[in-house]
Amino acid sequence: MHVLITGAAGMIGRKLTSRLVAEGGIAGRAIAAFTLLDVVAPEQPAGFSGAVNARAADLSAPGEAARAVAERPDVIVHLAAIVSGEAEADFEKGYRVNLDGTRALFEAIRLSGQQQAYKPRVVFTSSVAVFGAPFPDAIGDEFFTTPLTSYGTQKAIGELLLSDYSRRGFFDGIGIRLPTICIRPGKPNKAASGFFSNILREPLVGEEAVLPVSEDVRHWYASPRAAVGFLVHAASIELGPLGWRRNLNMPGLSATVGEEIAALRKAAGEKAVRLIRREPDATIARIVEGWPRNFDTRRALGLGFRAETSFDEIVRAHIEDELGGKIPVAA
Amino acid sequence: MHVLITGAAGMIGRKLTSRLVAEGGIAGRAIAAFTLLDVVAPEQPAGFSGAVNARAADLSAPGEAARAVAERPDVIVHLAAIVSGEAEADFEKGYRVNLDGTRALFEAIRLSGQQQAYKPRVVFTSSVAVFGAPFPDAIGDEFFTTPLTSYGTQKAIGELLLSDYSRRGFFDGIGIRLPTICIRPGKPNKAASGFFSNILREPLVGEEAVLPVSEDVRHWYASPRAAVGFLVHAASIELGPLGWRRNLNMPGLSATVGEEIAALRKAAGEKAVRLIRREPDATIARIVEGWPRNFDTRRALGLGFRAETSFDEIVRAHIEDELGGKIPVAA
Repeated sequence: MHVLITGAAGMIGRKLTSRLVAEGGIAGRAIAAFTLLDVVAPEQPAGFSGAVNARAADLSAPGEAARAVAERPDVIVHLAAIVSGEAEADFEKGYRVNLDGTRALFEAIRLSGQQQAYKPRVVFTSSVAVFGAPFPDAIGDEFFTTPLTSYGTQKAIGELLLSDYSRRGFFDGIGIRLPTICIRPGKPNKAASGFFSNILREPLVGEEAVLPVSEDVRHWYASPRAAVGFLVHAASIELGPLGWRRNLNMPGLSATVGEEIAALRKAAGEKAVRLIRREPDATIARIVEGWPRNFDTRRALGLGFRAETSFDEIVRAHIEDELGGKIPVAA
Repeated sequence: MHVLITGAAGMIGRKLTSRLVAEGGIAGRAIAAFTLLDVVAPEQPAGFSGAVNARAADLSAPGEAARAVAERPDVIVHLAAIVSGEAEADFEKGYRVNLDGTRALFEAIRLSGQQQAYKPRVVFTSSVAVFGAPFPDAIGDEFFTTPLTSYGTQKAIGELLLSDYSRRGFFDGIGIRLPTICIRPGKPNKAASGFFSNILREPLVGEEAVLPVSEDVRHWYASPRAAVGFLVHAASIELGPLGWRRNLNMPGLSATVGEEIAALRKAAGEKAVRLIRREPDATIARIVEGWPRNFDTRRALGLGFRAETSFDEIVRAHIEDELGGKIPVAA
């Protein structure tokens, strides 16, 4: 089978590619070829002996979406997106990439199917940003989407298109709403949500990190490993049981910042915890206030999607996947 | 003030124009000018002494949306749409008119505001078609939108855009989800929902009508008069209390076909009821099965939106508004 990944150069895209290479196939069918697209050309995946077409592509540019599906990939994982902050700062760019790019991809699939039967699996990564406060204690599977960002709006529109194109038979789509990814590897960035990862990742390697909110702030998390697991599972399962309700809240861990810190203490000791510097930031606290904290994801759980159930697991996944199984800083 | 109505040649558009002419203003501000657009040029409204620009326009055609808002109307009521059946039959036309046309209008407003401060009230007519079965007994204000038609998808996307453009400050928008309009004036049409109106309208003037479903079928109704009332109210009220949740289920009447018939009997007697011919149609019964039956619209009620509370009222509104207050067929 042939797998197309858009946004393949990003953190999740790279991890997904590696995982698929390691597993060798999806739902028992061997992967013979990858098409890997991003705004910068993705790297060739290590250890894959099949065909790889890795190149730079902007799906919203004329002809690019048609080119992306010209070889009729069997599975398309659409990760490419402008992130929340940038989509808020640059209205036109956000709509062009996140809405027009997604629609162009879906249209290219539909038009290709008009020439010759074609019905790929499409896995669309959405986000809990489709929801906007105020929230119930736990957001259920039937809660309405009232995004408070342009990014969330664009994702919610992508979800609606995904369901309609699936219902019309143009492809077999599933949209998955990812929790906040934690521990996000790499360097601290300026995203308002960055501290959720920073306060674990940095102390684990002996670096300081800033905590801008109080310890009782609750949030909704899944590890990069769990996120990649969602994508592979979404590419693998039968979608009939979903009906035309093709977009799902993914399972995650609802936990407080205090629970994060307790898991850090357990893994790396008090010395690591002391590397967290408390610098309350009212702006960040206010932004975080508007984010979902907890979900009741029984639909996704019933379909076999699984995430971590404690911060200990999330920390362990990070140590195994990013730190070679060892903690550099001693407790 | 200047009022722009798209879809102004349609049944609701014409009734809205007449009502605004009769009232003379919106929220205490006199109407000095109308721009009336539709795919066919709308008629000049009777009895209006101000400026009227009534012309044919397709908002999805290049330049048309910019032209529509060039004179910076203060209130824009966006009714124009391809109806459900046609949007399902012609996928590309539905998306072009209902999605691209709406987005072009919203974009034209945004771009106009970049040249000179401009923030009109935008009233968007959405539909209960944004919902898809299965439903709870009464659909609440926070129920999710999982449309089962391309029309419903396009309306749900329009709602999301409306909220985001409002949040970004490009205009002050409100989307209202209309119940099934009953009694729809005019001739019987082929819409699957047509019988809800036909079985009242035709017998009231001594004509036969076909009932394709059983009397216990429950549905969600508002009169044309109530629908026009919603639009005027939406154009008039302060929208601050809505926050960024700008799309609302409108109030309506949840009633069975049997209750419809009882109201007909009360208004026009058994002779009128005998004009209803029962011809069960499994296809129509199945389509109707997927439609919403009842809502809990406390948000809209709290904002002052009002609909009929009995079929007697709906029949009376029809007799007053369409039949000059008299029933041609004697009981």
